[in-house]
Amino acid sequence: MDIEQYMQGVGRRARAASRAVARANSGVKNAALLAIADALDHARSELEAENARDLAQAKENGLDAAMLDRLELTPARVDSMIEGLRQVAALPDPVGVISDMAFQPSGIQVGRMRVPLGVIGIIYESRPNVTIDAASLCLKSGNATILRGGSEAIHSNQAIAACVQKGLKAAGLPADAVQVIETTDRAAVGHLIAMPEYVDVIVPRGGKGLIERISRDARVPVIKHLDGICHVFIDRSADPDKAHRVTVNAKTQRYGTCNTLETLLVDAPVAEAVLPGLAHAFSDAGVELRGCEQTRSILGGIKAATEEDWRTEYLAPILAIKIVDGLDEAMEHINTYSSQHTDSIITEDYTRARRFIAEVDSASVMVNASTRFADGFEYGLGAEIGISTDKLHARGPVGLEGLTSQKYVVFGDGHIRR
Amino acid sequence: MDIEQYMQGVGRRARAASRAVARANSGVKNAALLAIADALDHARSELEAENARDLAQAKENGLDAAMLDRLELTPARVDSMIEGLRQVAALPDPVGVISDMAFQPSGIQVGRMRVPLGVIGIIYESRPNVTIDAASLCLKSGNATILRGGSEAIHSNQAIAACVQKGLKAAGLPADAVQVIETTDRAAVGHLIAMPEYVDVIVPRGGKGLIERISRDARVPVIKHLDGICHVFIDRSADPDKAHRVTVNAKTQRYGTCNTLETLLVDAPVAEAVLPGLAHAFSDAGVELRGCEQTRSILGGIKAATEEDWRTEYLAPILAIKIVDGLDEAMEHINTYSSQHTDSIITEDYTRARRFIAEVDSASVMVNASTRFADGFEYGLGAEIGISTDKLHARGPVGLEGLTSQKYVVFGDGHIRR
Repeated sequence: MDIEQYMQGVGRRARAASRAVARANSGVKNAALLAIADALDHARSELEAENARDLAQAKENGLDAAMLDRLELTPARVDSMIEGLRQVAALPDPVGVISDMAFQPSGIQVGRMRVPLGVIGIIYESRPNVTIDAASLCLKSGNATILRGGSEAIHSNQAIAACVQKGLKAAGLPADAVQVIETTDRAAVGHLIAMPEYVDVIVPRGGKGLIERISRDARVPVIKHLDGICHVFIDRSADPDKAHRVTVNAKTQRYGTCNTLETLLVDAPVAEAVLPGLAHAFSDAGVELRGCEQTRSILGGIKAATEEDWRTEYLAPILAIKIVDGLDEAMEHINTYSSQHTDSIITEDYTRARRFIAEVDSASVMVNASTRFADGFEYGLGAEIGISTDKLHARGPVGLEGLTSQKYVVFGDGHIRR
Repeated sequence: MDIEQYMQGVGRRARAASRAVARANSGVKNAALLAIADALDHARSELEAENARDLAQAKENGLDAAMLDRLELTPARVDSMIEGLRQVAALPDPVGVISDMAFQPSGIQVGRMRVPLGVIGIIYESRPNVTIDAASLCLKSGNATILRGGSEAIHSNQAIAACVQKGLKAAGLPADAVQVIETTDRAAVGHLIAMPEYVDVIVPRGGKGLIERISRDARVPVIKHLDGICHVFIDRSADPDKAHRVTVNAKTQRYGTCNTLETLLVDAPVAEAVLPGLAHAFSDAGVELRGCEQTRSILGGIKAATEEDWRTEYLAPILAIKIVDGLDEAMEHINTYSSQHTDSIITEDYTRARRFIAEVDSASVMVNASTRFADGFEYGLGAEIGISTDKLHARGPVGLEGLTSQKYVVFGDGHIRR
């Protein structure tokens, strides 16, 4: 099979199906989501068997333990896919919502209607559960979806795809509304990201390398999620208990997530008061500290942080610490080194809280809260397809609304322009 | 001077200035806009002299009459730049508006704050008044701007830039908040669109060729405005008077604009009733008609429309006409050939009006109104930087809001994630 021809066919069918999905009312889309959940529930043994094939192959190929863990479809993970589908079915439908409808001086009535983007391509790595997460959000937001999972998960993804097909059929939606690429040929990705006539947007989910490669080569818009180099700044007026609690939580609640704290900034006047207690807690948690010279003179025995550390997303139990002289130096550091993902100030000072919120240019800006809250569920979006570090279109956690656009609707009564 | 080094300097200074502009309160920004207006008013003779230099050079270079017209800064055009600045000053400031602020189950309070995009690059052709239109909208929305006008308008643009500098200075804003590129070296554009570290978005304003070239080569996001192949569909239940009035207005009110009607679709049952009257009106207006076979059998003596006509934005007194069999065929034609700019249905039928609004995938979808209304002023945006045919970020007329982004703001009280 010619791969370009195959991908063109996938694209053409997705575009055709996108019109039917865009038109489908909320009841039909929810019925499909619930039918997919039921299909998964009834296919547990097939899912296990197909996943075992992928796992066996992966072991043979020498994939590391972390990769094998991500690849595994445990019964709990199947439960959570099913639960996720039910949650998305319960979310309000964004499609067709009209806002700001108002009469204009000419007599026309103008508003904005939320509409699907059209066809969304999702490119992801090992976790097979992304197949369901992505398909459910795209379907609920009225889009057709083309899913391209990792080659190591091909059998698991095809088994999940069969359940998706059953659900779509049960609800009377076209099978092409969700297509899972059937080939592991790497060239498929290259074609998928270069068909603007068939694909409206690409959402890559995976490591930084994958996302950078796709962003560079794509000929369609990409909603991207790059690094999370997140900061907490402990201001001189911080409540010491809040500062301690939030900092430890932001670093240690989970290490591998993009909203995890990577660099702690401490205002000079309170550094001696807060750092020893924090160092103690981080030592208990097994977190390696790296500090600026001043930090090292207070804590002693920790590694020196280099310029490279300020630019690093560790995704690991390592924390860089820098002592700064006040809010301006803290914001200067953040606006220089932050990946504009999530940054938090710990302070009891009204004016500095307001300045931090206004002047830090990141997707999420927080006061007295853990960076770990930067998440679609915690923000009340219900679910998320990813966390965008772009400024245009969607910024921060991307839920159903981020998978839609708004068009203008105009009602007249034979109105003409003078 | 090395052009790459020069552009890097422009970018670096824009990025630095963008922080001050982002922080500037509404009063300061409005004061700058009004001071620029005053400076223009006092510089009328310099503007005329510098514009005369450009016009003389353009004539020497053999530019056509249309180009010369666009290049000329008549006293009326200076008036309208001044008026435009005052209008933008009077618009509400989008920056800092917080919406959807709500408590979440964890106890954190989450909302979205509207913030500037950062640095906006504008690339445009001959009209020097774009310098003021673009600078005023970008400034009001809290962005720093880099303006690159056509080489034929270099002296006019520099004279306008001097007025902008005076206004910025009077209001205490950094001079680098608005920079007008001083060189006519074509390489400047190539560098401007390839500095993601300094430029957040590019807005090209000009012909299709310019926009396609920039979109293809840009390494930063582009808010683009391509063709306007706009349709009016006269449904079988249309009120004949409204159909006639709207169709004639949509085609003849102005020929060169992107929201002008290019293809008229007529429902077969009413074609014989409406077409002769329309043909008469178009003949009076000097509009050439090109029709499908059925149209020609009704009207006679008009040219045949080819596949090419359905895909053409004439921007001229030419109209393509096609007779279709009902709403579905009309929407099929629109979704195939429309540039997704603006499409209008003329109908008295409730269900077909609702279907057209829901199913036509264009930036502006209208019922019983002229496509000529698709415009930032007519939609109540106050002004526009262009009309986007993209689906992501900004769609349709782009006003101040389209030049901003939203970030999440989170207020806690020492909240940590469990």
